[in-house]
Amino acid sequence: MCNIKPKIAIVGVGLIGGSLGLAMKKRRLAAEITGIGRNKKRLQKAKTAGAIDVLSTEFSDAAEADIVILSGPVDVIPYAARKIKPYLKPSCIVTDTGSTKAVIVRKLENLFPGKFVGSHPLAGSEKSGVRFASPDLFEDATIILTPTEKTGAATLKKTRKFWTDLGGNVILLKPQEHDRFTADISHLPHLLAVGLVKFVLEMPYRKKLKKMIAGGFLDTTRIAAGTPEVWSGIFLTNKKEILRALNGMIRELEKLGQAIGHNPARLKRILRIVRSWRQRI
Amino acid sequence: MCNIKPKIAIVGVGLIGGSLGLAMKKRRLAAEITGIGRNKKRLQKAKTAGAIDVLSTEFSDAAEADIVILSGPVDVIPYAARKIKPYLKPSCIVTDTGSTKAVIVRKLENLFPGKFVGSHPLAGSEKSGVRFASPDLFEDATIILTPTEKTGAATLKKTRKFWTDLGGNVILLKPQEHDRFTADISHLPHLLAVGLVKFVLEMPYRKKLKKMIAGGFLDTTRIAAGTPEVWSGIFLTNKKEILRALNGMIRELEKLGQAIGHNPARLKRILRIVRSWRQRI
Repeated sequence: MCNIKPKIAIVGVGLIGGSLGLAMKKRRLAAEITGIGRNKKRLQKAKTAGAIDVLSTEFSDAAEADIVILSGPVDVIPYAARKIKPYLKPSCIVTDTGSTKAVIVRKLENLFPGKFVGSHPLAGSEKSGVRFASPDLFEDATIILTPTEKTGAATLKKTRKFWTDLGGNVILLKPQEHDRFTADISHLPHLLAVGLVKFVLEMPYRKKLKKMIAGGFLDTTRIAAGTPEVWSGIFLTNKKEILRALNGMIRELEKLGQAIGHNPARLKRILRIVRSWRQRI
Repeated sequence: MCNIKPKIAIVGVGLIGGSLGLAMKKRRLAAEITGIGRNKKRLQKAKTAGAIDVLSTEFSDAAEADIVILSGPVDVIPYAARKIKPYLKPSCIVTDTGSTKAVIVRKLENLFPGKFVGSHPLAGSEKSGVRFASPDLFEDATIILTPTEKTGAATLKKTRKFWTDLGGNVILLKPQEHDRFTADISHLPHLLAVGLVKFVLEMPYRKKLKKMIAGGFLDTTRIAAGTPEVWSGIFLTNKKEILRALNGMIRELEKLGQAIGHNPARLKRILRIVRSWRQRI
């Protein structure tokens, strides 16, 4: 492998895409970064922020890229992949930053045989847009790559290097494992936050409740402010695992209710175990 | 009312009791603060921290107090109230800082006719102990007082002044209202956090999940590290309202599951409404 810096194209320069640009610039890892998107104003913001060198609303401007990163909502990624495919040079490798992997990987490894591997950086927040982007977003962040038997060895190697160069800690999972684990650890917490806000919103005395909101509620529901389009895409592309997790959680809550109603000793035991584990995270 | 500073007794000098001491000291609101508790070492820490002037393991040392504050876990407060009662002078007023109110208020207003009003400062965190105490914990915090028709007007007036002097924003609720509202806004979020940690803990692949834990999960479950004894007391003294809230929440989660499974348009609508409300808190 030569040591010439790669040319990069980032499709979708929001929080994640913008942070990727800033992170590569800070570490001087790219020869040139082209930001591609539909919204010129947003691209201009990314350029002003120093996240990209060149902006374009045309997929054809990815023609010289050595690495293409498809960022943005999970339901937009396969669309962008189909649109960009005709323009890429044969050596170009492709990854994405989508929050669900099974659907995306299945589609994209058919589009880019051997040249694609899925990525999911566990970074980001309820905020969105390039104005919240940070060059250190991936520093010490867990980055999940989801290679399959169809992934080319060089593609995996380059993509892994891409993320470790940005400070990320790469772990490998199967796409289905990824979706199962994120359903438990990310999508379910999000649903609980959404459900809790909705529960409170529907109370006839919600105005009084609002006055009483304190730290616990704020912490628990922070993620419910996430972008609706992003999250509906996540829920709908990981339906099966999310419904499994949601049903498991409902059973867990029913058991907690049982303990509160009839078994104080069990309740105390649960609280002790949970606290001890939570403190060690 | 005269302007002589009151003598204060705080029973239980943990995070809340200790912060009360520090807050009064900082604002020079008390003639003397006596900290009363069972554990001499803990009391000594509170004294060293500057939260109390005098420490004692004897309830009789509250004999000169003008205001007694019963702090600590909700199941300990009625016990402490019975023990301290024989020693108080007739003019002494009593309040508590318990997180549930109906049970405590019923018991304590019988013990201290006209001289008691319940307080619940919405401050504190998953941390406990005087070492996390802060003189500004009540600054701008919501303080709920729960007077009833049995509460003396002067008792309410003095207690209200006590909290506003510490920077708190006092609101008045009936004890039952308090317990209903806190079930929704505090106890339910706590149960969700506990349930979520337990759900993850019970997965055969929990070690892999642990590696993937990111901000959303951490925020959602922070409160699950709360003291087990404190929280079991809260759950057990507010059983009815908590089970009502828990069942309502389970129905809410079932509806979310339905929307994910069968009604994407409804899912998006819910996510938009929830985000907009959450952002305005």
